[in-house]
Amino acid sequence: MSEPTKFLLPEDRIPSHWVNLLPDLPGEPLPPLSPATGQPAGPDDLTPIFPMALIAQEVSTEPEVEIPQAVREAYGLWRPTPLHRARRLERELGTKARIYYKYEGTSPAGSHKPNTAVPQAYENAQAGVKKLATETGAGQWGSSLAFACSLFGLDCEVFMVGSSYDQKPYRRSMMQTWGATVHRSPSTLTSAGRDQAGHPTGSLGIAISEAVEVAAQDPDCNYALGSVLNHVLLHQTVIGQEAMLQMELAGEQPDVIVGCVGGGSNFGGLAFPYLRERPGTRFIAAEPAACPTLTRGAYRYDYGDTAGLTPLMPMYTLGHDFVPPPVHAGGLRYHGDAPMLCALVKAGAIEPRAYRQNETFEAAVRFARAEGIIPAPEPAHAIRAVIDLVEQGETGAILFGLCGHGHFDLAAYDAYLSGELEDPEFSEADMDAALARLPEAPSIA
Amino acid sequence: MSEPTKFLLPEDRIPSHWVNLLPDLPGEPLPPLSPATGQPAGPDDLTPIFPMALIAQEVSTEPEVEIPQAVREAYGLWRPTPLHRARRLERELGTKARIYYKYEGTSPAGSHKPNTAVPQAYENAQAGVKKLATETGAGQWGSSLAFACSLFGLDCEVFMVGSSYDQKPYRRSMMQTWGATVHRSPSTLTSAGRDQAGHPTGSLGIAISEAVEVAAQDPDCNYALGSVLNHVLLHQTVIGQEAMLQMELAGEQPDVIVGCVGGGSNFGGLAFPYLRERPGTRFIAAEPAACPTLTRGAYRYDYGDTAGLTPLMPMYTLGHDFVPPPVHAGGLRYHGDAPMLCALVKAGAIEPRAYRQNETFEAAVRFARAEGIIPAPEPAHAIRAVIDLVEQGETGAILFGLCGHGHFDLAAYDAYLSGELEDPEFSEADMDAALARLPEAPSIA
Repeated sequence: MSEPTKFLLPEDRIPSHWVNLLPDLPGEPLPPLSPATGQPAGPDDLTPIFPMALIAQEVSTEPEVEIPQAVREAYGLWRPTPLHRARRLERELGTKARIYYKYEGTSPAGSHKPNTAVPQAYENAQAGVKKLATETGAGQWGSSLAFACSLFGLDCEVFMVGSSYDQKPYRRSMMQTWGATVHRSPSTLTSAGRDQAGHPTGSLGIAISEAVEVAAQDPDCNYALGSVLNHVLLHQTVIGQEAMLQMELAGEQPDVIVGCVGGGSNFGGLAFPYLRERPGTRFIAAEPAACPTLTRGAYRYDYGDTAGLTPLMPMYTLGHDFVPPPVHAGGLRYHGDAPMLCALVKAGAIEPRAYRQNETFEAAVRFARAEGIIPAPEPAHAIRAVIDLVEQGETGAILFGLCGHGHFDLAAYDAYLSGELEDPEFSEADMDAALARLPEAPSIA
Repeated sequence: MSEPTKFLLPEDRIPSHWVNLLPDLPGEPLPPLSPATGQPAGPDDLTPIFPMALIAQEVSTEPEVEIPQAVREAYGLWRPTPLHRARRLERELGTKARIYYKYEGTSPAGSHKPNTAVPQAYENAQAGVKKLATETGAGQWGSSLAFACSLFGLDCEVFMVGSSYDQKPYRRSMMQTWGATVHRSPSTLTSAGRDQAGHPTGSLGIAISEAVEVAAQDPDCNYALGSVLNHVLLHQTVIGQEAMLQMELAGEQPDVIVGCVGGGSNFGGLAFPYLRERPGTRFIAAEPAACPTLTRGAYRYDYGDTAGLTPLMPMYTLGHDFVPPPVHAGGLRYHGDAPMLCALVKAGAIEPRAYRQNETFEAAVRFARAEGIIPAPEPAHAIRAVIDLVEQGETGAILFGLCGHGHFDLAAYDAYLSGELEDPEFSEADMDAALARLPEAPSIA
């Protein structure tokens, strides 16, 4: 074995702290605004649906946050995750570049999402909460939270977007196997759902409203979110910290780091530790051309949900009621992005790129045939960006985040291989409509 | 991390040799018999469909066989696989027993099958073969061979049992993503298929006949089998060799080893290295009560396929044309078992146990909620056996093979959770009918 292809760490190298990048961000942090008053929202605005420990993480300006021992032990079920060198893909591309990927698909739920589901479930259990409510689109987040709740004895109630509920019964069965209750959204259990009775497909916005409503009304139930918020990105920094140690084993550190971006938790988890320790690194954020938040959105205050119930957040947005075309990368179909990530893009520290659906699947199939792993449609965007970098002459070390496998996305591969995959794009008219719908709020651009 | 839950090996500890248990077997080995002449079959009987290197492995009596460097490098894509200690399951069971499991679900195809698909594809490519043909039932083997062929530039043609082709489109898409051609069996491409035109579901026996026919008629095409044969079990011994090193890291070796048995390759892969090095270990082979080959079959010469085209092999059999009830553990629905494994059961070195479908799913759900990983229905039989051992008072170290994940089996979990899972058993009448159908051959019992 003169050429290692995999760099593994023992369980005792699971990070002891999460990296909090909030104090490193350029300029003064912009506060979220209360949707009721338009004034800066404080911790008290969040206590009805989040436990105090997570609120404290959300607003912390400490550079590091200690990981509770029980969370590290649960991480040990699948962490540290492997870091691979893609030697076969390199050979196929005929490049001198060294291509590395950090693979999060070995978690029980098959993606990076359990990295935050576990500490969220733990802190809620510590606070005496009995149940967590959440929404899920394609099912990655819902299944991760169902898994985490099973570890800490919490009930879990998932509002699953109607179209996914109908099309992805396996993801639903996965949540039920871990003991969760799954509702098709819109449901008749909430007023938010009943208001939308008859909606044919449902939407993430409606499902969020249902879950938040359940959590706000039941004192034993809290809400959990799988991306966007500061504490979620914080939890994901185990990815980048492990990768840094594994790249040391490989004998170099990356010149370029590439990740896909939906809400930003996968990208932030890989990039934030490097942004602090190695700010000279080049960072590329890959998103769908059908939902081009970072490349074409407006940098403005906007709601996190369709109905406008959440605080207004400073972010690149396509408008809170924008419904992206049904590309298969369900995890990237979000109108906004994590405020921390947006601030870094605005400051020029991260370069966003947008890719069409078919070119991402072309890259994913190429990767699968070279490296074996079938990627989820979301990290296929990162793979496309990596191949483009190489074909444009990059010869350094590239590290990308392979944040999940595609075992529940094979219908999309089937459509691609049979030439029937749609290739939607975001139009100028879409952009104009999005800008016209932005709420009244202080300008930040 | 005072209590490690995972024992990992670096890539350079991938075994350098496979363990060949053939010279260790009790008594004189019984030869396979030619279906045409009834006389012992030699290597020449196999050259139309297998390359000489694999035939040499099939009949080798050397105690070890070196693993080619290119195979070790391909193994490096996912091997060494992790060995876990099931501390959460132990706590839930309230036992002093230490429960360990070797997890093969981290391979690209999601099971142990690539351990043999890779060397089979490699040796065929070395021999100048351009294409491999095979059959697949539930799809584990077909997808593993498709993956392996993509690594070595071989075409791959898979005859997929009709009912699985209709019910498991994701497994089909997986094979196609790796570049394989997949046919619904019975097909119109072969005379074996045309003879069965209109058969509503197809069967593994028909699919084998189709693949063998294609391989026998095309000089550029060979056949590949995923279990039963000596060289297949040989390749799987990387599992047990790694486990032995990992148990050293855990500070003890198992008192009991448990695995599920279909054709025997998963069980043999884990057990054979221990059978040689630690013969005092207790070995338990878990099979479905609906297809109780080892617990209720006759120890006789029988064909490997339904049509009677393969050599007659000495094994426990339910009759070569027995069609097991459609339990979800598709990988365990085989009328016979590997002759090497059968000889060890006959000699009393391995204890067989049979379990009903619902009790295996009850164990699988319990495991998933404690340990996170959702098991395939096949290793759920091993988990059932482990829980029974503990509940019957076993307090030693137990190691079992978790040979694959259940990501493509969630419809079965859905049926179990909704109380709609069937619970078929093998009847006395089934047994009588099986015995009446056995071919004329020398007695071995």
